[in-house]
Amino acid sequence: RPRREVLFFPSQVTCTEALLQTPGLPSGPPSGCPCSLPHSESSLSRLLRALLAARSSLELCLFAFSSPQLGRAVQLLHQRGVRVRVITDCDYMALNGSQIGLLRKAGIQVRHDQDLGYMHHKFAIIDKKVLITGSLNWTTQAIQNNRENVLIMEDTEYVRLFLEEFERIWEEFDPT
Amino acid sequence: RPRREVLFFPSQVTCTEALLQTPGLPSGPPSGCPCSLPHSESSLSRLLRALLAARSSLELCLFAFSSPQLGRAVQLLHQRGVRVRVITDCDYMALNGSQIGLLRKAGIQVRHDQDLGYMHHKFAIIDKKVLITGSLNWTTQAIQNNRENVLIMEDTEYVRLFLEEFERIWEEFDPT
Ligand SMILES: [Zn+2]
Ligand SMILES: [Zn+2]
Repeated sequence: RPRREVLFFPSQVTCTEALLQTPGLPSGPPSGCPCSLPHSESSLSRLLRALLAARSSLELCLFAFSSPQLGRAVQLLHQRGVRVRVITDCDYMALNGSQIGLLRKAGIQVRHDQDLGYMHHKFAIIDKKVLITGSLNWTTQAIQNNRENVLIMEDTEYVRLFLEEFERIWEEFDPT
Repeated sequence: RPRREVLFFPSQVTCTEALLQTPGLPSGPPSGCPCSLPHSESSLSRLLRALLAARSSLELCLFAFSSPQLGRAVQLLHQRGVRVRVITDCDYMALNGSQIGLLRKAGIQVRHDQDLGYMHHKFAIIDKKVLITGSLNWTTQAIQNNRENVLIMEDTEYVRLFLEEFERIWEEFDPT
């Protein structure tokens, strides 16, 4: 049965170090982290886990991206050789705490809009197989405080349609 | 085969009068509207059509709601006896052009948050059978200018999970 899941937010604030520090073992135990946060599952940890499952490609099409944990996850994937491409909105990109500069510095391809409307999507495609989409901007404010939803769907048809949308925008935002 | 669709925005600006003025015949022809807009289908007209298909109930859980066309569609449904319930965000509600005041005046039940985080969902449930959810706020700005997605899914499991989320928030925002 193909994966069909929804994560609701706000997420409980939990420690996600175990996920982010043992890249080879994304489902390993917290291995004795001494911090005072709970080490249980949360909507954020499930979202991180879904992302960290990527083995070959990751397309990100995100209005806002400032969550340090999600930024670290994307950098980990890039380090592991996953082909990461990021589309974002130029208005938000300039804001405080945006992860976009860090991703670029790490060598990840980023393109952004230059037109009037917002690039307001919030979706990710994992290995051209799983679609992650919803209302959640990838910011700590949204993750910890807002009521949000994120669907995680293994769905050939939706993946195809969102990938086409990604490629359309990717070409349109080509700076050259 | 259950319905599984995605609408991408920005939507072409088309005339939606035919949909909104013949409540009994939501799929009727534009019947000679003299306005200068195109009378073809668009992402907005498809979204309106999905909403106007409601026969018994409509749950709306929307961060922002200012689109006049979508507002008229919801009022039409209320007039036809569909049970409409609306959850919204109090910060946005106060803004210029919000439809929320008009809906309340028409006798539609509305509840809103009073806490710090945003009620940032953008979903609708039709007849407890179809889920409409995505990145789109129901504003003309977003519909006409932004890159957005809206999923329309006939999916028992997702409808159940989003309806539970709706009822949780509905109870929590009970003002009494
Ligand atoms: Zn810890
Ligand atoms: Zn017309």
